[in-house]
Amino acid sequence: MLKTAFIRSLLFTLLVIAVVALTACGPEDNADSAVGVNSNKTYHWKMVTTWPPGFPVLQEGAERFAENVKAMSNGRIKIKVYAGGELIPALQTFDAVSQGTVEMGHGSAYYWAGKVPEAQFFSTVPFGMTPRGMNAWLYHGGGLELWREIYEPFHVVPFPLGNTGVQMGGWFNKEINSVDDLQGLKMRIPGLGGKVFAKAGGNPVLLAGSEVYTALERNTIDATEWIGPYHDQRLGLYRAAKHYYYPGWHEPGTVLELTVNKRAWDSLPADLKAIITHAAESENVLMLSEMEQKNLTALKEMRARSDIRIQRFPDDVLSRLAAMTEETLAEEATADPKFKRVYEAYEAFRQKDDAWTAISEKSYLAIEHD
Amino acid sequence: MLKTAFIRSLLFTLLVIAVVALTACGPEDNADSAVGVNSNKTYHWKMVTTWPPGFPVLQEGAERFAENVKAMSNGRIKIKVYAGGELIPALQTFDAVSQGTVEMGHGSAYYWAGKVPEAQFFSTVPFGMTPRGMNAWLYHGGGLELWREIYEPFHVVPFPLGNTGVQMGGWFNKEINSVDDLQGLKMRIPGLGGKVFAKAGGNPVLLAGSEVYTALERNTIDATEWIGPYHDQRLGLYRAAKHYYYPGWHEPGTVLELTVNKRAWDSLPADLKAIITHAAESENVLMLSEMEQKNLTALKEMRARSDIRIQRFPDDVLSRLAAMTEETLAEEATADPKFKRVYEAYEAFRQKDDAWTAISEKSYLAIEHD
Repeated sequence: MLKTAFIRSLLFTLLVIAVVALTACGPEDNADSAVGVNSNKTYHWKMVTTWPPGFPVLQEGAERFAENVKAMSNGRIKIKVYAGGELIPALQTFDAVSQGTVEMGHGSAYYWAGKVPEAQFFSTVPFGMTPRGMNAWLYHGGGLELWREIYEPFHVVPFPLGNTGVQMGGWFNKEINSVDDLQGLKMRIPGLGGKVFAKAGGNPVLLAGSEVYTALERNTIDATEWIGPYHDQRLGLYRAAKHYYYPGWHEPGTVLELTVNKRAWDSLPADLKAIITHAAESENVLMLSEMEQKNLTALKEMRARSDIRIQRFPDDVLSRLAAMTEETLAEEATADPKFKRVYEAYEAFRQKDDAWTAISEKSYLAIEHD
Repeated sequence: MLKTAFIRSLLFTLLVIAVVALTACGPEDNADSAVGVNSNKTYHWKMVTTWPPGFPVLQEGAERFAENVKAMSNGRIKIKVYAGGELIPALQTFDAVSQGTVEMGHGSAYYWAGKVPEAQFFSTVPFGMTPRGMNAWLYHGGGLELWREIYEPFHVVPFPLGNTGVQMGGWFNKEINSVDDLQGLKMRIPGLGGKVFAKAGGNPVLLAGSEVYTALERNTIDATEWIGPYHDQRLGLYRAAKHYYYPGWHEPGTVLELTVNKRAWDSLPADLKAIITHAAESENVLMLSEMEQKNLTALKEMRARSDIRIQRFPDDVLSRLAAMTEETLAEEATADPKFKRVYEAYEAFRQKDDAWTAISEKSYLAIEHD
């Protein structure tokens, strides 16, 4: 009896251990069923971008975002980042995310202007808001909600992820002293900026980044805009034209976007959604900060060269271009109710932002130091 | 024999189940030993802040940061946030984090000027960089590394977490037409701004936020600075003084800081460290954006009132204060080698940032629109 009792007791003990041990793994299963997704699963996602392979700051920023997401999720979501053309052509990024060919994309909303004209307000518009105003509008002024609504029919969820800051006005092979000097000028300048430039009598040309330097150097074009001191210096544009104009009235702070396929997004557990959301916000400030740091360093190097003339567009040219921008935006809005709706939301915020900027950032920066 | 064999077999089976079941939980233990910390552990941390309970944007931002960290970590790190005075007095935040009384703090580096004078460069200095330049310096210009080095002897790890943006110049009970009008003026203005104000002949007064309104209303002081339109409106300062001056030369974009006790930080697994790091970066841009959005809304409301005179300090007053700031910083640097070292690193970056800002943000904002 003693032996049988011992065996019974041992059996019972082992049974308890087995049951307790098995159920000890239970909380994760409970958590899974609670969120309706498999929180233990490792997600292998693809991101395609609109940037050339290894493109500094922008492609690098998309890759840093992927690394940060991996680190935060302890490897539960691994995003493989492909530059433009590596998996699909750069300008098919939006479609690839929309169709679910890939889960994620990185680019800027004005690239899809042909398909979604009103998307341009979520990247940048001529004489529009700088990064500070754009972030305030997107994160706290209803901008992001509107952006999500605009992309919803395409099954795409957008997030701000990076910003170029105020760009430069571009490289010209002659001085620009009045709007008359823009007459017939062939300039690589895309999007709404190009439309305004055409209204001013210029001849906007569409060229891929890879063709810009050669076209300018061979006088196929008379002028080109690119980004800012750092990227412009790397492209060697100072060797092809001497007049480097500022400010970049056509792109006062281009918002870069993360796009996520809606179905892929919905498949994620809540913690991974939170990780992606805040990693995008984090990379938004990191990328802008890196642009600023690299631009201020490159500008100092450019200032040391005698063969680059860094010049401001004359006030009259800027004022006239600003007036033509208002006309252009009003024309687009008249022709397209969707464009009009986003334009009005953007404008309502921009006007308040302008009034505040006038007595804060603008007024502060205007102080004359010795 | 059959029965004994069955029991033996059953015993063996249960033993195998028990062992397999127990070791099935093993991978997490393996992961634990790999990182040298318990990655399964739930961390219950405390954060103390320098803000009053419920203080909009700032205390709220610290609380949102804690919520985001909880969501990203799926509840593995829970941070309970205490406002100033709830657990310890507001201005003991740094010491509490340093001593490990709490794991985290939120405030701004200039509050510890008495203990670490050079820390002021990591919050804001008069006529210094705006948030854009500060973020570029901290994240990509070596600023954060220097900040970590400065806090290292105190066992505190700092992170930028939030920014007020360019502040307002303050409320005055009379017009300021020249530096002479500052003579003998009693103004609530703390820190380096207060020292510069004293050099200009003013009488800086130290007052806690809770005392500011009453002191101004009862003419115990003649003027006070606070934050910006949104917080100033909430405090009702327009009922106590009519002249509302801009820009906030003394605080052109105050960086808020997350501080983490070094030992607590070292105890975290890598994924939670990544989550805290990027949640702080995320909240950095979110809080600044919320400040902007609330300020531009409040300014519009203030503009609608006839009893508030929103005025710019005269150019001459600003230029003279800027010159006195240079003198003040040079004096502090002469007296304190540590202050000098951080001042020089800050200045080297600021000068390049100024040159870039002049042709980007400043030049762009100066465009005259119709």
